[in-house]
Amino acid sequence: MPSTMRTRHREFLREDIGSGDITSELVVPADAMAKGTIAAKEDCVLAGVSDAAAVFEELGAEAVVLVEDGSHVKAGQKVLAVSGTARSLLAGERLALNLVMRMSGIATLTDELVTKARKSNPNVRVAATRKTTPGFREFEKRAVVLGGGDPHRFGLDDAILIKDNHIRIAGGVEEALRRAKRSSFTKKVEIEVENERDALLAVEGGADIVMLDNFSPEEAKRLHDKVKALRPGVLVEVSGRVRPENIEAYAPAADIVSVGYITHSARSVDFSMTIEGA
Amino acid sequence: MPSTMRTRHREFLREDIGSGDITSELVVPADAMAKGTIAAKEDCVLAGVSDAAAVFEELGAEAVVLVEDGSHVKAGQKVLAVSGTARSLLAGERLALNLVMRMSGIATLTDELVTKARKSNPNVRVAATRKTTPGFREFEKRAVVLGGGDPHRFGLDDAILIKDNHIRIAGGVEEALRRAKRSSFTKKVEIEVENERDALLAVEGGADIVMLDNFSPEEAKRLHDKVKALRPGVLVEVSGRVRPENIEAYAPAADIVSVGYITHSARSVDFSMTIEGA
Amino acid sequence: MPSTMRTRHREFLREDIGSGDITSELVVPADAMAKGTIAAKEDCVLAGVSDAAAVFEELGAEAVVLVEDGSHVKAGQKVLAVSGTARSLLAGERLALNLVMRMSGIATLTDELVTKARKSNPNVRVAATRKTTPGFREFEKRAVVLGGGDPHRFGLDDAILIKDNHIRIAGGVEEALRRAKRSSFTKKVEIEVENERDALLAVEGGADIVMLDNFSPEEAKRLHDKVKALRPGVLVEVSGRVRPENIEAYAPAADIVSVGYITHSARSVDFSMTIEGA
Amino acid sequence: MPSTMRTRHREFLREDIGSGDITSELVVPADAMAKGTIAAKEDCVLAGVSDAAAVFEELGAEAVVLVEDGSHVKAGQKVLAVSGTARSLLAGERLALNLVMRMSGIATLTDELVTKARKSNPNVRVAATRKTTPGFREFEKRAVVLGGGDPHRFGLDDAILIKDNHIRIAGGVEEALRRAKRSSFTKKVEIEVENERDALLAVEGGADIVMLDNFSPEEAKRLHDKVKALRPGVLVEVSGRVRPENIEAYAPAADIVSVGYITHSARSVDFSMTIEGA
Amino acid sequence: MPSTMRTRHREFLREDIGSGDITSELVVPADAMAKGTIAAKEDCVLAGVSDAAAVFEELGAEAVVLVEDGSHVKAGQKVLAVSGTARSLLAGERLALNLVMRMSGIATLTDELVTKARKSNPNVRVAATRKTTPGFREFEKRAVVLGGGDPHRFGLDDAILIKDNHIRIAGGVEEALRRAKRSSFTKKVEIEVENERDALLAVEGGADIVMLDNFSPEEAKRLHDKVKALRPGVLVEVSGRVRPENIEAYAPAADIVSVGYITHSARSVDFSMTIEGA
Amino acid sequence: MPSTMRTRHREFLREDIGSGDITSELVVPADAMAKGTIAAKEDCVLAGVSDAAAVFEELGAEAVVLVEDGSHVKAGQKVLAVSGTARSLLAGERLALNLVMRMSGIATLTDELVTKARKSNPNVRVAATRKTTPGFREFEKRAVVLGGGDPHRFGLDDAILIKDNHIRIAGGVEEALRRAKRSSFTKKVEIEVENERDALLAVEGGADIVMLDNFSPEEAKRLHDKVKALRPGVLVEVSGRVRPENIEAYAPAADIVSVGYITHSARSVDFSMTIEGA
Repeated sequence: MPSTMRTRHREFLREDIGSGDITSELVVPADAMAKGTIAAKEDCVLAGVSDAAAVFEELGAEAVVLVEDGSHVKAGQKVLAVSGTARSLLAGERLALNLVMRMSGIATLTDELVTKARKSNPNVRVAATRKTTPGFREFEKRAVVLGGGDPHRFGLDDAILIKDNHIRIAGGVEEALRRAKRSSFTKKVEIEVENERDALLAVEGGADIVMLDNFSPEEAKRLHDKVKALRPGVLVEVSGRVRPENIEAYAPAADIVSVGYITHSARSVDFSMTIEGA
Repeated sequence: MPSTMRTRHREFLREDIGSGDITSELVVPADAMAKGTIAAKEDCVLAGVSDAAAVFEELGAEAVVLVEDGSHVKAGQKVLAVSGTARSLLAGERLALNLVMRMSGIATLTDELVTKARKSNPNVRVAATRKTTPGFREFEKRAVVLGGGDPHRFGLDDAILIKDNHIRIAGGVEEALRRAKRSSFTKKVEIEVENERDALLAVEGGADIVMLDNFSPEEAKRLHDKVKALRPGVLVEVSGRVRPENIEAYAPAADIVSVGYITHSARSVDFSMTIEGA
Repeated sequence: MPSTMRTRHREFLREDIGSGDITSELVVPADAMAKGTIAAKEDCVLAGVSDAAAVFEELGAEAVVLVEDGSHVKAGQKVLAVSGTARSLLAGERLALNLVMRMSGIATLTDELVTKARKSNPNVRVAATRKTTPGFREFEKRAVVLGGGDPHRFGLDDAILIKDNHIRIAGGVEEALRRAKRSSFTKKVEIEVENERDALLAVEGGADIVMLDNFSPEEAKRLHDKVKALRPGVLVEVSGRVRPENIEAYAPAADIVSVGYITHSARSVDFSMTIEGA
Repeated sequence: MPSTMRTRHREFLREDIGSGDITSELVVPADAMAKGTIAAKEDCVLAGVSDAAAVFEELGAEAVVLVEDGSHVKAGQKVLAVSGTARSLLAGERLALNLVMRMSGIATLTDELVTKARKSNPNVRVAATRKTTPGFREFEKRAVVLGGGDPHRFGLDDAILIKDNHIRIAGGVEEALRRAKRSSFTKKVEIEVENERDALLAVEGGADIVMLDNFSPEEAKRLHDKVKALRPGVLVEVSGRVRPENIEAYAPAADIVSVGYITHSARSVDFSMTIEGA
Repeated sequence: MPSTMRTRHREFLREDIGSGDITSELVVPADAMAKGTIAAKEDCVLAGVSDAAAVFEELGAEAVVLVEDGSHVKAGQKVLAVSGTARSLLAGERLALNLVMRMSGIATLTDELVTKARKSNPNVRVAATRKTTPGFREFEKRAVVLGGGDPHRFGLDDAILIKDNHIRIAGGVEEALRRAKRSSFTKKVEIEVENERDALLAVEGGADIVMLDNFSPEEAKRLHDKVKALRPGVLVEVSGRVRPENIEAYAPAADIVSVGYITHSARSVDFSMTIEGA
Repeated sequence: MPSTMRTRHREFLREDIGSGDITSELVVPADAMAKGTIAAKEDCVLAGVSDAAAVFEELGAEAVVLVEDGSHVKAGQKVLAVSGTARSLLAGERLALNLVMRMSGIATLTDELVTKARKSNPNVRVAATRKTTPGFREFEKRAVVLGGGDPHRFGLDDAILIKDNHIRIAGGVEEALRRAKRSSFTKKVEIEVENERDALLAVEGGADIVMLDNFSPEEAKRLHDKVKALRPGVLVEVSGRVRPENIEAYAPAADIVSVGYITHSARSVDFSMTIEGA
């Protein structure tokens, strides 16, 4: 665990524990020892178990990861074993579960979308967006990767992504791209386009990635083929109207399909923790 | 906005912007001015618009809240107007939307559950749990309140809540309650029970709130009535198997129904932002 | 020690050490080892020794707590033994003593007040207030608990406490209570009253705790009895003119007597640290 | 107010307010305006009123300092006037009072000691020590200065102060001083001595300040005169057994008298705040 | 100024001011007003003047930028005018100068190298490395950009750069590249090579950028041409033995020349600040 | 390593690593172990090796310091050996080298200046100034000390230093000194003078240190002798036009020669790190 991650875990613990776990301090003797396990209650792709382990270690308990992040897990399967003072297990329980439940929810949904998309395009990538929970992005992006997805940009400092508003203010695709190409040579330049003309201008203007926004699967596919004919190395990203039910239709039109609700609308996967005296 | 909230907004901006919005810095002139509005794309209960306003103000733009948090909003309705440099609007857009979309998602789901539950028990409260996104709890709890729900405990330092593991370690309901009553007189003592015997011991032991965990609606109702007969002032919370489809059945058995997925599985409500030159 | 506490200890060390202990760096060889003990110079109730131990551990030394926090200690009694580099012991000495001296001062004063108050009412609690040193509240509240007192609210987010100004702005006790009862069901509602009429309205309005502010012991007792007759479960807190010399007189009128100067005017208990070569 | 101070005020507010002032949020309308004044309830030397003003400004209220820090104030005198939302005044009230009450307590005690000490030595300084409340030192040192005292070292990085343990580890006064003189030329070197021999060695060794620890007033005076005869420029600090009742006796033996309980055992001065609708 | 930058400025002020500017607090009346200007003492490319302005604004003074960052400035030219309390100007003076002097030093050196390199290759970019002062990277990278250079990667999370150690551990260029291509599609993949064979493998393996490390100008040029013949779109970066005296020789072999000492060995440009009574 | 230093190291790692070392995460197996050594590529005075060790330890690797900070090191000499996961070594490499290269650059330059200055005045001290890299001062001051120099003031809260602007605002040397002498007795008072009259007033006014600013070596020497004749205990600091080529000429005129470019214009010393499989 890098130290930045530990800092975040500590912040999360502080959020939950505040000035102290007053119930355990009153009810549980300081020296009572306990063991616990976290198990999945649904089939899923596991994510966050390494974070859960780190949470318990931060509290002074020992944790053994039984199944690695990224694995397919069956309902009932145990994924983490912990031991330490009963107080430390009780103090970490909720945060550990919150991490595993949310991250596994995202990883599992990602895996489902990847599976669907690859039926029609075995090389396609399914990417997340910046539609993440404020303050929790690094965990959600990691869950996407564990589910087989692509994290896309982490933030605004990460890659150039020219959107409709940028194009309008710059006065067109060509001028926007011209300005963007002044960026560091280490950055890719992506541009979002809404019609064929702009897509072709984008390729000519040297974009590394062209994002087709809000096209039908057929229009997207047609444009994808035109763009690739013009410059085979350009990447095509499709975005905007993609849903689980149509991702298979969109996939042939894209190198990458990006989907906001992988992060903004994934439901949690259920996990439970059992604790018993050591 | 209290200063602690502003601190969180700044952290969220740092997460998204990092060392700088490199696209806008290249493509958008520093002195280009713009106006923008955020509008709902679905009917919902609005939450997070005051946070969205604060985000733009933090970036030096002006923001006018058009609809107050907690209001019922129709698809298409504008909720926030902002003006300032185009760069500030572009830098705040994603975070502002992320806040409004997630918080409105939670507020809207809460409102739905409250409406359903009150059909069968007009006085019942629908409460959240601690199953929140790590680091984002204060926003999610606030969204619950804006949707008409009860935030429940904020964290482990907030109220005494004796759970099954505490009872087991203490050696029973009576002993656990006896220890818990040593807490500050300012704290309520709640205890989770799984059978009738423990429920009755809890009331006798002086619990302020008895949580009935994982009962059927009928069992819960029967126990609720017994408990209330024993001590009318005790509050009964029902938890554990509640779903939108059965909350109406559970409500008569409870003063409070608590539901984890209000926070852990709410989907986002869709909002969009339009930006145009000033 | 929870990690939030360690964070505070680190902040305190930074306050005292700043960019370095320049005297020890010049005068004491880096590899000189030493042992030390902290001993009380007065009879007292010990508080802060676990913090003192943590301070030395934070600096890389080993610490053995000889007497647990909350114990009655005699003048001359050793409470902590430490060993490590001489530099670490010298760097932690002042902070460790400051913690033990102040916290034991508060714990000892609390214990004295509890003893006095219980002469006339064996069930009474002696509670602190929010009149604490800014930034040091969690330590002072903990010292109160170690001295046998009740910490009362930790802060404004902790419990509802309706004061005179709230009542005035709301337009009376009834309306203030009505509004306050909209709070989460997990919170108790306390209200401060200055006359009999308001006290009775408070009980009728459903207050969990009624605080009698600035009454004489006799008036307080009379009102206490009226209030309890109306609703036996209501708690009565007496506050405002309580001093060590009259707390015995006030105690029969109260479930809780709260006293600001437990925290705002306790004098330190004297402790000293001896260090010798290992 | 320097920004570091504002940071501390914000931390103090966070400590008191936490996730929100739940009473005012329920009972006081968001748009209710109010005015308030803080007044002394005892004669004192005022300290902390500028901090109190800054606290209310941090909360969005306006504050007018009526009496400057460091002034002698009479019981009943108003020292600060504030206006703003009722919520902001209620949220800042306790912290503002805690700051003024504690800091004025220290300033007033300092002023008393200075007055006593200067009866017998009009040029003497009364200095604080590092026996301060952890985390609150800068405020306590400032209060000492406002009361006419000398703050002494702020922390271990501030000046060289060789204590008994340093001397022992170094193997004597001469060697300890020799090592200490390697410090930056910008630092003064002070040394604590417990007998005449060491005091004279200290002067010969080039100490800027000699601290006489735990001497009687007569012994201290005799040694003071010897030391000054040896090198008139050396400063003599007396420490260790000084109390209000003997500070007048010690003062002639010293350039500086340092007293730990100025900070560790000062009682608070009483202030109150009145709030009324605007 | 984005808020993250302001946070850094505040940290820098805290470093310099600590608990207070004790000289000014003693010597300069709180209400003394002053004006000041910062002027260059050498010809240079200006960088950091916007930071200097922000520093004074943070201290409550007003600042007017007279020459924009990135401009060529002559010795004697005034670049910033400030006005406010004398204390605020004195408190900000050193930090403001330190920022301008260091950042202008880097911008000026970058400009010199760019000018030299473009004599032989008008399209070449001169890039910085990660050899920056710990904690000050964002300022140094910005200075490089202001001097006409390319910032290169900000950090390890920014772009894929496969170095010799990575290649060795992976077991060769092909395997290292194969693994690296699993990265997000938004990231470019750069690889450092030390011989022709690896360079050609790198191009075939799909690297976006090939870094030629420690070649002579002639070898680099020869390899550059081979690599470009193989795939014209690949970028060639030359690194490792580049000095001001040979950058003109290296430039024809590269799209980008990267030079560590732009940041690690630039000397400061001299600036001075004059302050006078307002 | 004090904990404040570890906090800085962590901040530096976060600057470089951000959300993760994406290259190593892709290319280097998590369980690959490695060993590494850092070696000097030039003769130098070593500084920062203890920091480099702490950086690797922070990342979970083991580090053995082979040569202590402050030692004279030959080109090729190994100074640090590390072992751990290959990822931890790769993640720490750049920061460790940046620390050692910059700090050794400063220490080596300081050592050169001290050697030159002491040819003509064996007792002279060479001091740094506050012309340091923002945010990195404690490391640069430490490097100065390791090179045999004097760190001078750490910041504005550290010692009284009355500069020309202070004198002007106060209305002359005498009044400025009179005000400054109200400072804590623990602080030295230094004053910067630009002519003989002020220098003599400074000595008479009781300054501990007189700084001769911008004098020629001859004028400085003449004034130094006058000042010392007046009061032998006063320290004389020479500043302002000192360069490596004239420091030997200035040294006889001073107790201390202070030189800004020790910190603001030192070039880095070259070090390299080799890593190989364990």
